[in-house]
Amino acid sequence: MSVKKVVLTGDRPTGSLHLGHYVGSLQQRIVLQETHKQYVMIADIQALTDNYEHPEKLKGNVIQVMLDYLSIGLDPQKTTFFIQSMIPEIAELTVLYLNLVTVNRLRRNPTVKTEIEQKEFGDSIPAGFLMYPVSQAADITIVKGELVPVGSDQLPMIEQTNEIVRTFNRLYKKEVLTPAQAIISKVPRLPGIDGKTKMSKSLGNAIFLSDSADVVKQKVMKMYTDPFHLRVEDPGQVEGNTVFTYLDFFDTHPDQVAELKVQYEKGGLGDVVLKKRLIDVLNAFLDPIRSRRAELEKDIPHVMDILKRGTQETREVAANTMHEVRDAMHLIYF
Amino acid sequence: MSVKKVVLTGDRPTGSLHLGHYVGSLQQRIVLQETHKQYVMIADIQALTDNYEHPEKLKGNVIQVMLDYLSIGLDPQKTTFFIQSMIPEIAELTVLYLNLVTVNRLRRNPTVKTEIEQKEFGDSIPAGFLMYPVSQAADITIVKGELVPVGSDQLPMIEQTNEIVRTFNRLYKKEVLTPAQAIISKVPRLPGIDGKTKMSKSLGNAIFLSDSADVVKQKVMKMYTDPFHLRVEDPGQVEGNTVFTYLDFFDTHPDQVAELKVQYEKGGLGDVVLKKRLIDVLNAFLDPIRSRRAELEKDIPHVMDILKRGTQETREVAANTMHEVRDAMHLIYF
Repeated sequence: MSVKKVVLTGDRPTGSLHLGHYVGSLQQRIVLQETHKQYVMIADIQALTDNYEHPEKLKGNVIQVMLDYLSIGLDPQKTTFFIQSMIPEIAELTVLYLNLVTVNRLRRNPTVKTEIEQKEFGDSIPAGFLMYPVSQAADITIVKGELVPVGSDQLPMIEQTNEIVRTFNRLYKKEVLTPAQAIISKVPRLPGIDGKTKMSKSLGNAIFLSDSADVVKQKVMKMYTDPFHLRVEDPGQVEGNTVFTYLDFFDTHPDQVAELKVQYEKGGLGDVVLKKRLIDVLNAFLDPIRSRRAELEKDIPHVMDILKRGTQETREVAANTMHEVRDAMHLIYF
Repeated sequence: MSVKKVVLTGDRPTGSLHLGHYVGSLQQRIVLQETHKQYVMIADIQALTDNYEHPEKLKGNVIQVMLDYLSIGLDPQKTTFFIQSMIPEIAELTVLYLNLVTVNRLRRNPTVKTEIEQKEFGDSIPAGFLMYPVSQAADITIVKGELVPVGSDQLPMIEQTNEIVRTFNRLYKKEVLTPAQAIISKVPRLPGIDGKTKMSKSLGNAIFLSDSADVVKQKVMKMYTDPFHLRVEDPGQVEGNTVFTYLDFFDTHPDQVAELKVQYEKGGLGDVVLKKRLIDVLNAFLDPIRSRRAELEKDIPHVMDILKRGTQETREVAANTMHEVRDAMHLIYF
């Protein structure tokens, strides 16, 4: 019996992972796997809620995301990877939980509300989209997740989960389900190369963990700096300068970065010099990831086997939880 | 390979079955099992949508409903019985289908709309209740049901199913799912003993298939007739007279019933005489059912084993359908 706390995170397999994922989430997982029972879920069912018209793109991304995980150092001995859709118990739990939440409560969920506006569904909100906080509650509780690292915008999802947990335990008079606690990342969000606050594949402003050295070079050279810093000798602005933001995250010599900032603000330090430094810094960070990826790519069946074994392990845990749920609800017939 | 058409019916395990079920649905199933591949589903998940606060009452009713089925002559060699919640593939399919339906479409479903009003949910419609047409689409399609006997009020549910079927086949470019056709019962509804149009357990106006001869006698003696037929010699009204309605359904001598009607309308035929006839008629109908039930009750494990075997058989069919669904959606990973 493990006394480690259970932590659940995951990603939608809608594209390769990028530096924004690394800063915001992946680096934390590398730490958490040492001290926690960590599950990492590839959320294909959740991805379908807004990609149901093109499910064919998910499978390839599942492989890419697994390569990303393993090449950054998530260790299958310490982290259990699984595919959401391969755990039917999550769907079973979702259907049971739908009775414990009202339609209006889901509509009022701030995260869902914001996303519905962003996606411009208008009057045509897919039912699956409105329901996805319920599906998330099932994801978390099926493995009895105790800690869920999230961005602060996702806090309402954890609240929704815990409302369901409390309702379930109260109605069925057993403490079967475990409330989850959010771990809110204190790391500020890594901006995209265009300086926008969010790095994302769909915004086209991402540097992927799988980008080659050449691609990284091209992307950094296009990076947003200080639009008023036109000549080398002019004073430049550090605040909001994406190149400095990245150096703050990835440069292993913060003292040197501090000196560069002083020089930049005074004038006489050109963007190109800075960008070349960042290219070196990023490639130094990405090189070991790239070589691990190159190794892994030689044996994709092995990578999928890791995912398969993790999924099997998760199914056993899920079946136990589902049995307890059925027992509490008097739904065991045979 | 069977060339028989697949028919799916079922009941919510919220109480024992009564004469209304027999007239409206069960007698048809006894006929259908001879010529069709018939599935009969005990819809515990659907029952939970408005009984989630008291799931403990379902299990006992599952046994009662199975006893009802077997004692009226549904034959496990010809009909496959299964429990909805024991087929996880139904939940998986439900979750996938939720993406193919909008929230507004569900709200506009006439059956759901009416039921939401009847149940007086107000602003607190459980999400599971709104979604139950989607769950029904999963029930029907998981066994590739081609024919679904329903009341005319349930027609919108079949339409909803077929909308999902068409959307699925179009989006995923494979004719995986089979559209379902409603079989609308031409038999008029059996009224309750109080003369109300619907016999139902919750209205307290039902004669159950499991009622003893004494209970049937008491219920018939209370039966609604013609409220203006006060004295034996008065002319009575046949139209809307529940005793005659029941005689029309169950009396094996329609010629004698026709004569009684003439006499009743003329005057000189008392309600008690008629009711005594109906008691005999109903007990003659129920006696063989009662003796089969008495036999079955001696070995409840055997009854549950029939249900278990049917559920296992259905799971195999469900797993095949789910595999085809996953294949069409490119969701097969291992």
